Amino acid sequence: MTSPKQNPTGAKFRPLSVDKIKVGGFFGPRMDTISTVTARTLFERCIEAWMLDQVDPELPNPGLVIPFQHSNTVTTQMFWDSDFGKSIETAAYALNHKPDAELEALVDDVIDAYGRLQQDDGYLNSWYIRIEPGQRWTNLRDRHELYNAGHLIEGAVAYFHATGKRKFLDIMCRYADHIGQVFGPGDNQLKGYPGHPELELALVKLGRVTGEQRYLDLAKYFVDQRGQQPNYFEEEAKRRNEKEGGFHFGTLEYCQAHKPVREQDKVVGHAVRAAYLYAGMADVATEFGDDTLTKPLETLWSHLVDRNLYIHGGFGPSAQNEGLTFDYDLPNATAYAETCAAVALVFWASRMLGRGPDGRFADIMEQALYNNALAGLSLDGTKFFYDNPLESLGDHHRWTWHRCPCCPPNISRLVASIGSYFYGVSENEIAVHLYNASRAEIALADGPVTLEQITDYPNDGAIMIKVEADQPRHFTLSLRIPGWAKSASVTVNGETITAEPQAGYIRIDRCWQGGDKVALVLDLSPRRVFAYPKVSVDQGRTALMCGPFVYCLEEVDNGADLNSVILPDDAPLTAAPSGELGGIIRLSAPALRETAQNDTLYQAMPPRRRETDLTAIPYHVWDNREPGAMLTWVRREV
Amino acid sequence: MTSPKQNPTGAKFRPLSVDKIKVGGFFGPRMDTISTVTARTLFERCIEAWMLDQVDPELPNPGLVIPFQHSNTVTTQMFWDSDFGKSIETAAYALNHKPDAELEALVDDVIDAYGRLQQDDGYLNSWYIRIEPGQRWTNLRDRHELYNAGHLIEGAVAYFHATGKRKFLDIMCRYADHIGQVFGPGDNQLKGYPGHPELELALVKLGRVTGEQRYLDLAKYFVDQRGQQPNYFEEEAKRRNEKEGGFHFGTLEYCQAHKPVREQDKVVGHAVRAAYLYAGMADVATEFGDDTLTKPLETLWSHLVDRNLYIHGGFGPSAQNEGLTFDYDLPNATAYAETCAAVALVFWASRMLGRGPDGRFADIMEQALYNNALAGLSLDGTKFFYDNPLESLGDHHRWTWHRCPCCPPNISRLVASIGSYFYGVSENEIAVHLYNASRAEIALADGPVTLEQITDYPNDGAIMIKVEADQPRHFTLSLRIPGWAKSASVTVNGETITAEPQAGYIRIDRCWQGGDKVALVLDLSPRRVFAYPKVSVDQGRTALMCGPFVYCLEEVDNGADLNSVILPDDAPLTAAPSGELGGIIRLSAPALRETAQNDTLYQAMPPRRRETDLTAIPYHVWDNREPGAMLTWVRREV
Repeated sequence: MTSPKQNPTGAKFRPLSVDKIKVGGFFGPRMDTISTVTARTLFERCIEAWMLDQVDPELPNPGLVIPFQHSNTVTTQMFWDSDFGKSIETAAYALNHKPDAELEALVDDVIDAYGRLQQDDGYLNSWYIRIEPGQRWTNLRDRHELYNAGHLIEGAVAYFHATGKRKFLDIMCRYADHIGQVFGPGDNQLKGYPGHPELELALVKLGRVTGEQRYLDLAKYFVDQRGQQPNYFEEEAKRRNEKEGGFHFGTLEYCQAHKPVREQDKVVGHAVRAAYLYAGMADVATEFGDDTLTKPLETLWSHLVDRNLYIHGGFGPSAQNEGLTFDYDLPNATAYAETCAAVALVFWASRMLGRGPDGRFADIMEQALYNNALAGLSLDGTKFFYDNPLESLGDHHRWTWHRCPCCPPNISRLVASIGSYFYGVSENEIAVHLYNASRAEIALADGPVTLEQITDYPNDGAIMIKVEADQPRHFTLSLRIPGWAKSASVTVNGETITAEPQAGYIRIDRCWQGGDKVALVLDLSPRRVFAYPKVSVDQGRTALMCGPFVYCLEEVDNGADLNSVILPDDAPLTAAPSGELGGIIRLSAPALRETAQNDTLYQAMPPRRRETDLTAIPYHVWDNREPGAMLTWVRREV
Repeated sequence: MTSPKQNPTGAKFRPLSVDKIKVGGFFGPRMDTISTVTARTLFERCIEAWMLDQVDPELPNPGLVIPFQHSNTVTTQMFWDSDFGKSIETAAYALNHKPDAELEALVDDVIDAYGRLQQDDGYLNSWYIRIEPGQRWTNLRDRHELYNAGHLIEGAVAYFHATGKRKFLDIMCRYADHIGQVFGPGDNQLKGYPGHPELELALVKLGRVTGEQRYLDLAKYFVDQRGQQPNYFEEEAKRRNEKEGGFHFGTLEYCQAHKPVREQDKVVGHAVRAAYLYAGMADVATEFGDDTLTKPLETLWSHLVDRNLYIHGGFGPSAQNEGLTFDYDLPNATAYAETCAAVALVFWASRMLGRGPDGRFADIMEQALYNNALAGLSLDGTKFFYDNPLESLGDHHRWTWHRCPCCPPNISRLVASIGSYFYGVSENEIAVHLYNASRAEIALADGPVTLEQITDYPNDGAIMIKVEADQPRHFTLSLRIPGWAKSASVTVNGETITAEPQAGYIRIDRCWQGGDKVALVLDLSPRRVFAYPKVSVDQGRTALMCGPFVYCLEEVDNGADLNSVILPDDAPLTAAPSGELGGIIRLSAPALRETAQNDTLYQAMPPRRRETDLTAIPYHVWDNREPGAMLTWVRREV
């Protein structure tokens, strides 16, 4: 990775690329499954869905396969390039984790098809080239054209890191260069930007891997231009002679283009768009040392985390706009909380760490990752949640595929690349954001070091970090102390570190020697969480957590009618390992169960009560056994 | 009213027509408001919405005013005749209650326009005559063509009863005769039936007022033919070359045409369609003494009441199909519970009383009427609820008008004709289903009697019924004892009646003299109701009731964050009259309020508690003061 040097002041913390880290422990089996099952499954389902037919000019044109929707302006078929982009990205990480010549050949075939599809001027979008030729760049707002480019770029960057093959990267550089000619401040350039943000963060990845400043500049252009007056999307709609009602979602808040990004102070609209945009903004803030983005980003962050975040780290309660509604609107049974939005929040949070370690961001990254995001993928790697309610009457289950299959490759690429979220690395500091058994090669100004994490975290609170270096290296090792940890202790080579955490991290600045051992112990004892009174549906209820995991009750463990179970505030919670579900920690507690006095729907007598035992499992593994009801916020009683 | 005589056995209990009963007491002011405000408002809003332009061939054709929806097959503009039909019906009852020459002239103008619109063959539908000529009878399933006819017929019958004018009745008889020629068992007749039931019950009304058996026969034909194989709607769709997905709702359960009505045992699909159909079935069962309909009707009734009815008497939780989902799915905040569905349930319940008094039906009629239905109309008579959630975070308010304005005239016509629901009358029995100050002239086999009810019910449990008759009359007076009444006492001329209720009614068979006085006292003390454990969202909660009224908490009385209020099971409930909101009985109770330990969204400490007082008002008057949050099911604690 070549690092551009346009930030005159302040450290920049960048992630490791996946080829620099080997991951085992908690995430190891999930990554194995992606390598052996999911990566291939994604390609097969994309191809079954006619996607390759649309991409490959040598195949018969499939025409319109998925009907138009939303005032007949959009079909999810327009987004197919993004599905391939994320599938290629997943496959790249999977190949890095476990080589597989057959899978690699499958990916190469798709890349070759994109090579054949690319136009002489570099343009590359299968919908506009093959289904609606002549219409390119006419509806940035609705049709995901630049979004598709972003996902293909991310796929290309990942494939290059994993395999060293440049072909797809070169294709996407040509397309990025074409986009850079079409869009920009010049007289003959369009002043547009992505209707669905994503390209911004992709261009930063492209800039980082190629060392080309122009891709970073283009990312910054898209960020800076967004929401400026005259509003590009409004002007563009006039040029299309758009009819009233032609914009299904009605408000430019939907795509966060209602005002310039530096004036935005509320997380609004489509959740995935929002978090991708903010992630791109954070990347630009990091790469350009742009402090004018810092305050808006922190204000947006607070608006999300203080008022609009589900306990499982998801956000966006409404199916109608796949996004935000109003503050504290966090219904459980109807929560949309799209898997992609939780994945996007991990992206955003990880990029908020670009200016330095800060527990505010890393804690939420962990919460979104281990709960809402991870729930998106079944343990066997074949099924996917799109929306993630916190309560189900038994009718919510993972899909094999979806008409809008954005989530399957999104959660897959996140899990398959999870190692790159563990560390933030500047010239002379390594921030450990996430704990998981792994071995990472890290380049610092003072030379290379290897960090090995030995741990069963998050199922166990003991974490050992071993430093390997061929000679002493001077750097700061910053260890995240999760906000939820009631206690934490750190020793270096057996010697206790007494420093208090700064911004959620214990920072150990020293000259490290090969063989140094850092031991961190986090208190993982189970705990209750209570929601602020304005979160109406959670009142009289408690959520159970253990480390980063949010727990839930499933019918298979607790019987039906989960809202008839009451957990007294003073009932002790017991955590115990279970061989089930990939080796989870179960929680149990003495509880009460209510039963009706008779069979009528409404009755004059309150229910009877008897003693029972409650069993809870981590939210992310729910719906992996017998289908049934699920409940996250459990009735409590003083 | 001429009574057809086609029922060889068993009594038939029919309602009084509105001109036979004067209503005061609880409903008096609501009816006054409809007469002075609402009836005219409905016409003005219909006319503002371009409806008269569509009906009157002398006015320029408005063309498409409301866009198509649902796969571009339906616009609510197709239903405009029904809106006029219900508005005429409302106006008719309003005129009966309070003559108003200006309003009558307005109605006559609309009726004249329908006269001009009617085709030579009798056909009468403004959409198909003026907007899509040549398309009539091509899509009974989706386009409400026969439904519109039904509402116009109901309007015509009401207008005849109220004014004695035959013009509209004659117009609608001609149209009904045309429909009777087009549809029927004959070789050259279509085997169809209404996609949206309603015409069935309207034809029974038409048969009763005209004494013409053919209208009853046609009602029975539509009931009998529904859901028979080959399925008419499927055949019709083939004739239209309907594309896949052309039926937006996908299943014939949506319109209760999935199987013959006598085989139906679950209330499914669109709630209003369902209840209108069952109402028509009950009417046919009564008029034809058709016992083959009795068991299906009672099975359907039980399925609704035992598993799918909201405490406020509404049903149909889902906005998606405006109807049913699965058993015990009764969410509060997202409850659709359309006003029209509660009104339709009153219709259905009242018709289930056609074979004789039965508290099962009358209790639910009362519950739907005084809660969900009545909530549909603001106290000032100008605003309307479409959907009726049982909980609101403060963002749910009555509409001035709606793109699909079915509910405003529906609740208005119900309230304006409420007197006709008080009694069921057979040749020698008067069943008193509802108590309300009123004076009714009733024709029995033994001669006419007048019953005067003197009462403030449902705000007071004391009901006096005075018999007026010029000579002794022998009949049974059956007094409903509501199932919720903990105690009830009845005296006749001061002498206690000790008989136990039969099917929820105390039946007093005697030779009544003018001046006889029946005194009934019902215990209206407030009570708690608890939901069956399978109603997930209501667990740990209680609903408060007083007589037929369901109560709710409003923010204006209780402050925000209503789910922070806890009502202990042992807290005494106090009922007291209030001058507010038209003179309601308020409930109050000592309660607890929780407040958070700090401002964070999720916190480690449970909320603090302090003592507070809870104030509840009848659900039907909520959202008539300052807008704010509302809650029906209150948190309870042992």
